[in-house]
Amino acid sequence: MNNINFDQNKKYDLIALGRAAVDLNANELYTTLEETETFTKYVGGSPANVAIGMARLNKETGFIGRVADDQFGNYVLQYFENEGIDISNMPVDSSGAKTGLTFTEIKSKTESSILMYRNEAVDLKLCTDDINEDYIKNSKALLISGTALSAEPSRQAALLAVEYAVKNNVKVIFDIDYRPYSWKSEAETGIYYTKVAEKSDIIIGSRSEFNYMEKIIKEEDRTDKEVAEHWFSFNSKLVVIKHGKEGSTAYTLEGESYDVKIFPVEMIKSFGGGDAYASAFIYGLLEDWDILDALEFGSASASMLVSAHSCSDAMPTADEIKEFIEEKKKEYGERVVRD
Amino acid sequence: MNNINFDQNKKYDLIALGRAAVDLNANELYTTLEETETFTKYVGGSPANVAIGMARLNKETGFIGRVADDQFGNYVLQYFENEGIDISNMPVDSSGAKTGLTFTEIKSKTESSILMYRNEAVDLKLCTDDINEDYIKNSKALLISGTALSAEPSRQAALLAVEYAVKNNVKVIFDIDYRPYSWKSEAETGIYYTKVAEKSDIIIGSRSEFNYMEKIIKEEDRTDKEVAEHWFSFNSKLVVIKHGKEGSTAYTLEGESYDVKIFPVEMIKSFGGGDAYASAFIYGLLEDWDILDALEFGSASASMLVSAHSCSDAMPTADEIKEFIEEKKKEYGERVVRD
Amino acid sequence: MNNINFDQNKKYDLIALGRAAVDLNANELYTTLEETETFTKYVGGSPANVAIGMARLNKETGFIGRVADDQFGNYVLQYFENEGIDISNMPVDSSGAKTGLTFTEIKSKTESSILMYRNEAVDLKLCTDDINEDYIKNSKALLISGTALSAEPSRQAALLAVEYAVKNNVKVIFDIDYRPYSWKSEAETGIYYTKVAEKSDIIIGSRSEFNYMEKIIKEEDRTDKEVAEHWFSFNSKLVVIKHGKEGSTAYTLEGESYDVKIFPVEMIKSFGGGDAYASAFIYGLLEDWDILDALEFGSASASMLVSAHSCSDAMPTADEIKEFIEEKKKEYGERVVRD
Amino acid sequence: MNNINFDQNKKYDLIALGRAAVDLNANELYTTLEETETFTKYVGGSPANVAIGMARLNKETGFIGRVADDQFGNYVLQYFENEGIDISNMPVDSSGAKTGLTFTEIKSKTESSILMYRNEAVDLKLCTDDINEDYIKNSKALLISGTALSAEPSRQAALLAVEYAVKNNVKVIFDIDYRPYSWKSEAETGIYYTKVAEKSDIIIGSRSEFNYMEKIIKEEDRTDKEVAEHWFSFNSKLVVIKHGKEGSTAYTLEGESYDVKIFPVEMIKSFGGGDAYASAFIYGLLEDWDILDALEFGSASASMLVSAHSCSDAMPTADEIKEFIEEKKKEYGERVVRD
Repeated sequence: MNNINFDQNKKYDLIALGRAAVDLNANELYTTLEETETFTKYVGGSPANVAIGMARLNKETGFIGRVADDQFGNYVLQYFENEGIDISNMPVDSSGAKTGLTFTEIKSKTESSILMYRNEAVDLKLCTDDINEDYIKNSKALLISGTALSAEPSRQAALLAVEYAVKNNVKVIFDIDYRPYSWKSEAETGIYYTKVAEKSDIIIGSRSEFNYMEKIIKEEDRTDKEVAEHWFSFNSKLVVIKHGKEGSTAYTLEGESYDVKIFPVEMIKSFGGGDAYASAFIYGLLEDWDILDALEFGSASASMLVSAHSCSDAMPTADEIKEFIEEKKKEYGERVVRD
Repeated sequence: MNNINFDQNKKYDLIALGRAAVDLNANELYTTLEETETFTKYVGGSPANVAIGMARLNKETGFIGRVADDQFGNYVLQYFENEGIDISNMPVDSSGAKTGLTFTEIKSKTESSILMYRNEAVDLKLCTDDINEDYIKNSKALLISGTALSAEPSRQAALLAVEYAVKNNVKVIFDIDYRPYSWKSEAETGIYYTKVAEKSDIIIGSRSEFNYMEKIIKEEDRTDKEVAEHWFSFNSKLVVIKHGKEGSTAYTLEGESYDVKIFPVEMIKSFGGGDAYASAFIYGLLEDWDILDALEFGSASASMLVSAHSCSDAMPTADEIKEFIEEKKKEYGERVVRD
Repeated sequence: MNNINFDQNKKYDLIALGRAAVDLNANELYTTLEETETFTKYVGGSPANVAIGMARLNKETGFIGRVADDQFGNYVLQYFENEGIDISNMPVDSSGAKTGLTFTEIKSKTESSILMYRNEAVDLKLCTDDINEDYIKNSKALLISGTALSAEPSRQAALLAVEYAVKNNVKVIFDIDYRPYSWKSEAETGIYYTKVAEKSDIIIGSRSEFNYMEKIIKEEDRTDKEVAEHWFSFNSKLVVIKHGKEGSTAYTLEGESYDVKIFPVEMIKSFGGGDAYASAFIYGLLEDWDILDALEFGSASASMLVSAHSCSDAMPTADEIKEFIEEKKKEYGERVVRD
Repeated sequence: MNNINFDQNKKYDLIALGRAAVDLNANELYTTLEETETFTKYVGGSPANVAIGMARLNKETGFIGRVADDQFGNYVLQYFENEGIDISNMPVDSSGAKTGLTFTEIKSKTESSILMYRNEAVDLKLCTDDINEDYIKNSKALLISGTALSAEPSRQAALLAVEYAVKNNVKVIFDIDYRPYSWKSEAETGIYYTKVAEKSDIIIGSRSEFNYMEKIIKEEDRTDKEVAEHWFSFNSKLVVIKHGKEGSTAYTLEGESYDVKIFPVEMIKSFGGGDAYASAFIYGLLEDWDILDALEFGSASASMLVSAHSCSDAMPTADEIKEFIEEKKKEYGERVVRD
């Protein structure tokens, strides 16, 4: 049992809003992108990964986002449809904008980087005309990816979607998902993050992501707990602050806090873990699990992802996650991530 | 006595944020702009007019806004300085942007229109680096003109200024001031108006201006009172809804409402009345007058303005307004605007 | 008799291509623009002035240029129509672009400056669809104002007009008319000036204007004669190099050169002289006068203009110019401008 | 022996100007791009391919073009350097522009298509400051790829490079290389192609590419010979018109014409043949071969390329081309491509 009262009468479990992009992952590991010869193509983009994660977990999932009028746009739509994600609110853009691309480079076990193609990215063409109140109204939750706020007209479209969610008792989940490109300044980032955070029921981000909002009001030294409490003074009930390899903590409006660590795995890349975490954690909340169980489930899914080649195609089912947790507990003890 | 508790320890009475522009008013009345031969130059732009109005009323007034690096930019700064307005937060822009221009055309006693030059308008170049928390902190009130929200980077600068005001107990006054140019869509207008309105202590606008926000949440048929109450559920204490020649009504958080009509005058133009109204009404609030007295003062100043040639240069002093009210009451009775 | 063989069977004497704008001339002389209180409105813009000059000289004149969809656009069209200029190729632009504005400031007898509004100027929206081969084909000459080359799509429209002129034996007259705004770099200016100059029959400009093209091919120290000869190696027959108060010289393909000085007058502003010069000089050429007579006529018209308040409205008729020359010769001798 | 008198005292044989991009070629043949799972990365872009072709043919080759400040920019520079291409005039761009990408899709033996990423393409950021007269002066020939003209500032940079070439007796080779993206209209294409074609010594293109220029002057029905003659009236000595599978014809200023057909090969893609053709043909001209021999050499290289996986990496050496021709002649007869 947790403190988020999803309206169980709604058709969709989650509608994610933002970018559905293409990842081109280097097939050769431990070399530079300059030297990389071949790439494998996957669907990518944080909210797309979360949506795929939710669908793999058998939740009714929808998506709001623009796709390009070309082969990569088709590819995204086909992939989503195959996963069972509703694509009725994914308009094909005719402006000449292109699907965002991410080329990944895994230089060594500890060093990886990416090369992004985000000029005239199609996802940022999402506009207010694309936002359908009746669609949003039918979902238990709306997930906003922070990157959708990085430029107009996507920014105003996302803000409108949040208005509709608030009005219709759809829980707003803000996955901060900071990406340095697209944003023009840190102040801009902080200002528009703040506008969504103030309306959100659940906020998920790393401490450095929360700090974009802290800087706006010039509060940089607050503890995690103080940061969470700031958002409780608005609309939030649950604030999850992530600390990478140190694990993460969920704070509740009621004053509780819950910690989980990460599962011991052989990581091959640092990408995608956060999206797996988000989808499995939200799954747990939707199932009305205790927060700590949901966190553990998120942590497990994240650990599974960072040891796979893709960010989307490798999203696990609920049974796979459960099996993974069981094995790890057998190996490392029942409280492997719990203290 | 009214329900706005301005912090009387602050240095400035009002800081206005937005455009300081140039009006070029036709000297020939009752002809088209095509036929007009000569124009007289004035400082213009709604928040500039309000600031001039406040200064004429002997209030400590500041301004946040960018001015062009040319003769018209100099003119605005010189004019403000002569009026006693603080210009320390009016950076000179070096991007090649230009002072907004408004050519007025008074076709007949009942028909007037304007020709705006707002392409690359310098006021919309205001950016977050221009927003100084310490400056805002020192003011009893911050006036945001809605036009400052119509484009980036001015939009984010205005939103940041509002954050600083809220944090430092500076009352936020939102003068909706809708202008059709600059905005790309009605949805955009409604979304960003909403973001400021939610944080405002006082909102002033015509009913059609409030409707931009009503449409966002698809509430179009609410009474004025219901509209006001919507904003009381956020941060507002006072909502003033104007109805042109029918007068205006102020609604309070406490559930009261106050009506005033307009004074009988020979109007020569419809421009500028709203800015005079705002400055004189805010003056009354700052003086802690009863709301009805403040409204009457605003209405008087508005009436004086619409019978003058300029919007800024004709702003009256407190004594002039008082004298005007006295005369009108002598002629039309004590309750001339009160029922 | 001169060396330009205009095809006398064509309907129009001259079609000018480029900007038709609005001048707002300070009514108060010898003060700064900051202090100027009133302005008088005139049609302006170099090619518009030349067209008005041609029309006053009773030549069949056309114009290719976009006008704004507002009162100033109407004003330009009405003024042209009243002057007898053909406006059939002046489309009304619907992009929201604005008529260019020039505020003039006459600080003292020797110092004047201007303030230009050229952001999103409507004249630079001229596009290839606006260029009608049949229209150009019907003119003896096409005048290209260099400013039309300063930005796309006007640049390509002007280049296309030149192609049509060359193909149809329409003489190309290039009035360099350099204005610092709009151009992004000196190299850009030189490159596109060069493209028109190579195709022109007649080139008119100050030496500093010719130097934009000299710099491109890194030839900066050539004599005026060498500069002229460079263009004779392309398509030119006549090159006029102006030296302000020192007068001007016309060089011919045949190796002749002709000098004129300026007439002694009391100048009140430095603007507009060049446009009067161009129109009266071209008039003389169209009349098949000797080059020296045409130059004298141009010089006279220029001198008349710089002692008037406007650049367009003051354009003289042929009789007025002749009378002016007669008077000046009576006063200063027959060869007043000839050596 | 041919009619192009290259100045043999110059250091470089050819400097190519334009885009150096990245191709991502589908590894799975005969499937759609949507279904394609993996891609192989190559250097691409027509002028880059020609430069690589020249280098493989052991000619001193340089390149003028901007590269991105990222891994793909590094990759292009490293690849060029390994091939022996001079990269001293390839500035690294810091504007955030990206290397152009081309994803190839080979749907069947007869149907292939591409997906281009050209938004904010780095090659189109080439500017006049990047154009070094001393560099160009040192080359026998300058190759302009038509795509370099598709947008500013690259357009003006290319036009400036042509000016320097003409001034310094560097032969200008115009490889029309039409690509539909980037260009805003057919008129724009025709106008700027014309500006380079008028200055070119050699023009190479398909008939449909020449037609962009024909349309500008509204001459659409001319024979190939008439088209070639039009350009001989400017600066051209050699005009090569290509007809795909029908072969190609070279026309000379002196009135000769030479035909070659294509070699019989199993084609696996239609891309890159033109670039191989250009490099091997220019090689023949530089070697002062008879035009027909140069054409045959070009045709052979083209045939070799279309049966390889890449457009750049597969560029043959002179020995390989000679061997290929020998084999084909053995199999199909000495005049296999000659009538």
